[in-house]
Amino acid sequence: MELNEIYAPIREDLARVKAELASIGDIDLPWLSGKWGYLVKGSGKGMRPTLTLLAGKFYNYDMAYLLPMAVSVELMHTSTLVHDDAIDNSEMRRGYPTVNSIWGDDVAILLGDYLFAKAAEYVADTQSPRAIKLFSQTLGIISSGEINQFFAAFNMEQTRDDYIKRISGKTASLFSLATESGALLSEAPQEAVSALKAYGYNLGIAFQIVDDILDFTSTEEELGKPIGSDLAQGTLTLPAMLILERYPEANPVRKYLETRDEEHLAPAIERARQEDIVNECYRVATDYCQQACRNLDTLPEGETRQIFRELADYVVRRKE
Amino acid sequence: MELNEIYAPIREDLARVKAELASIGDIDLPWLSGKWGYLVKGSGKGMRPTLTLLAGKFYNYDMAYLLPMAVSVELMHTSTLVHDDAIDNSEMRRGYPTVNSIWGDDVAILLGDYLFAKAAEYVADTQSPRAIKLFSQTLGIISSGEINQFFAAFNMEQTRDDYIKRISGKTASLFSLATESGALLSEAPQEAVSALKAYGYNLGIAFQIVDDILDFTSTEEELGKPIGSDLAQGTLTLPAMLILERYPEANPVRKYLETRDEEHLAPAIERARQEDIVNECYRVATDYCQQACRNLDTLPEGETRQIFRELADYVVRRKE
Repeated sequence: MELNEIYAPIREDLARVKAELASIGDIDLPWLSGKWGYLVKGSGKGMRPTLTLLAGKFYNYDMAYLLPMAVSVELMHTSTLVHDDAIDNSEMRRGYPTVNSIWGDDVAILLGDYLFAKAAEYVADTQSPRAIKLFSQTLGIISSGEINQFFAAFNMEQTRDDYIKRISGKTASLFSLATESGALLSEAPQEAVSALKAYGYNLGIAFQIVDDILDFTSTEEELGKPIGSDLAQGTLTLPAMLILERYPEANPVRKYLETRDEEHLAPAIERARQEDIVNECYRVATDYCQQACRNLDTLPEGETRQIFRELADYVVRRKE
Repeated sequence: MELNEIYAPIREDLARVKAELASIGDIDLPWLSGKWGYLVKGSGKGMRPTLTLLAGKFYNYDMAYLLPMAVSVELMHTSTLVHDDAIDNSEMRRGYPTVNSIWGDDVAILLGDYLFAKAAEYVADTQSPRAIKLFSQTLGIISSGEINQFFAAFNMEQTRDDYIKRISGKTASLFSLATESGALLSEAPQEAVSALKAYGYNLGIAFQIVDDILDFTSTEEELGKPIGSDLAQGTLTLPAMLILERYPEANPVRKYLETRDEEHLAPAIERARQEDIVNECYRVATDYCQQACRNLDTLPEGETRQIFRELADYVVRRKE
C-alpha cells in the first residue's frame, strides 16, 4: 500500500489539520508568512497528526477533539525541529533553509517557544485533562532526551540501549503521544488506549532507526540536507554504533569521533552505507515494526487495524 | 510595610512552592543541580507565585490547586529568563553566571524547553481547563512579545504605546496570569477573577517600569548585572524613550542607537539617570499602581485586600 492509500480514511481531515496549521502562521507571524509554508505545509508526511486521527477511528471519532490534538502534536514536533536546527547549526531541512540560517538562533529560539505555546493552546482545546497531562509529560521527555543527546555527543562509550533510550525520548514519545491521545479522545477503553500507545512507541522507534539509516544511505537531494549530518555533529546513531560494536579496533567512525577532523568524515559515512551495516539496521527496525503490529492484536478488526499494519510496513520501506 | 510583612500570610506556603521548585532540579537534572539554586531558590522575591497564593486568599484557598499553579507560574518565568539570557548574550543574572554563560546557548535552549515542559505539567495538575488555557495563552503572548521586542531593537520610531504593549506582553501578562489563576482556582466569582486579573496586569506594568528605571539608576552590585544592559542591546525602555521624546534633537541616547558605538553608551546611561527622567518614569509607574489599587475596590475588604495595596506600594518603592 502506498502512503496516499494509507491516508485515504483521514485525507480530508488531515487537510483540515494542515489548513489550521497554515492559518496560525498567516495570522500571528506576518513577518514569517512567506517562509511559514515549509515549516508546516511542506512538512512532508504529516505522520504524527495522521497517527492521532487514525487512532481515533477505532471508537468515537470526533474532530472537535481530534483536530486540536492533531494540530498540537504537529506544532510540538515543529517547535522541537526549530530548536534542534539552531542547536545543530543546521542550514537545511526538508530542502529549505532553516529558521536559524535565515534569521539567526535568537529568532529560532523565540519562534520555537511561540510554537510550543500554540501547541499548548491547542491541546487545552481538547478539554481532556489526561491528554493535556500526556502532552506536557511528552514535552518533558523530549527535552530531557535532547539534553542527554547533547551531553552524549562524541562519547563512544554509549551502548545500543543508550541509543534506543535516546530515540525513545526524541521520537517514539511523540509518536506514542499521537496514538494514545487519539485513542483517549475517541473514548477508547483503557486496554485499547494502552495498545495504541505501545503501537505508537514501537512505530516511532522503527521510524527513527529508518531516519538514521536514510541519513547515511540517501542522497543530499532526497534528504534535503547533507548526508551523515548526525555523525558530523558527533551524534551516534545505530549505523555508526554497529560499526563501533562490530569492529572495536580501528575503524573509520572511531577515527572521525576521536579526531573530529572533517577529512575522516567521508570514509566513516561510506562505511555506514555498506550492506552489512544497513541490513542489520533494517532488521532492528523491522523487529520494532513487527512488535508494533502485535500491539494491534487486541484492537477491533477492520479497515483501521489493517491501515495501521500497512503503516508499519510503509515505515521500513520508505525512502524519504 | 516591608516585603516580609506583606508575605506573612503566605510565607509557609511560599516555602512549599520553593521546596517543590528546588526538588525538580535535584531529581531530573543532576548535572545542573549544583547551579540549580540560583535559577529557582535564589530567585529573590518570588513575586509571581506570591501573587497566585495571595489571590487565592479571598475565597476558597486550597493548596491542592494553588501549589501546582504557583510552581507553574514561576517555572514559566524561569524558562523565559533562561531563553532571554541566551538571546541577549547576558553573562550575569541576579549576581550569578547565566546558563548560557556556563554551558552555552545550546544547553540554555534545551533547559528552557525543559522548564516550559515542567511548567506545563504542573499547570495540568490544577485540573482546571480555564487555568490551563490561560497558561498557554500567556506563553503565546510572552513569546510573540519577545519576537516583537527582538525586531524592534535599535528602532527609534517606537512610541510609548509600543513600549507599554511590549512590557504588557513580556511582564504584565504573567503577573495577570498569576493573579487570575489564583482567583480561578479558589473559586472566586467572575467579577473578582476579572478584578484580580486587572490588578495583576497593572501591577506588572508598574513592576516592569520600575525594573527598567533600576536598570539605569541601580548599581551593578545591586542589579547583579551591568547597568544599562537593555539600552546596550538596543532595547528602548521608558527612560530612554522619554529622552528621545523630550529632546528629539541631538541627545546621547539617539547617538548611541545610531552609532551602536560603545563609547556613546556611558553618556546615554548617565542621561537616563538624571532626575527629570527618573521622576517622570516613577510618576508613570505610580499611575499604574494606583490603577491596580482601584481594581481592588470590588473585592472583599480585609487583610488580603490591604496586603495587595501594600504590595502595589512596595513595587514602586523597591530598590532591587
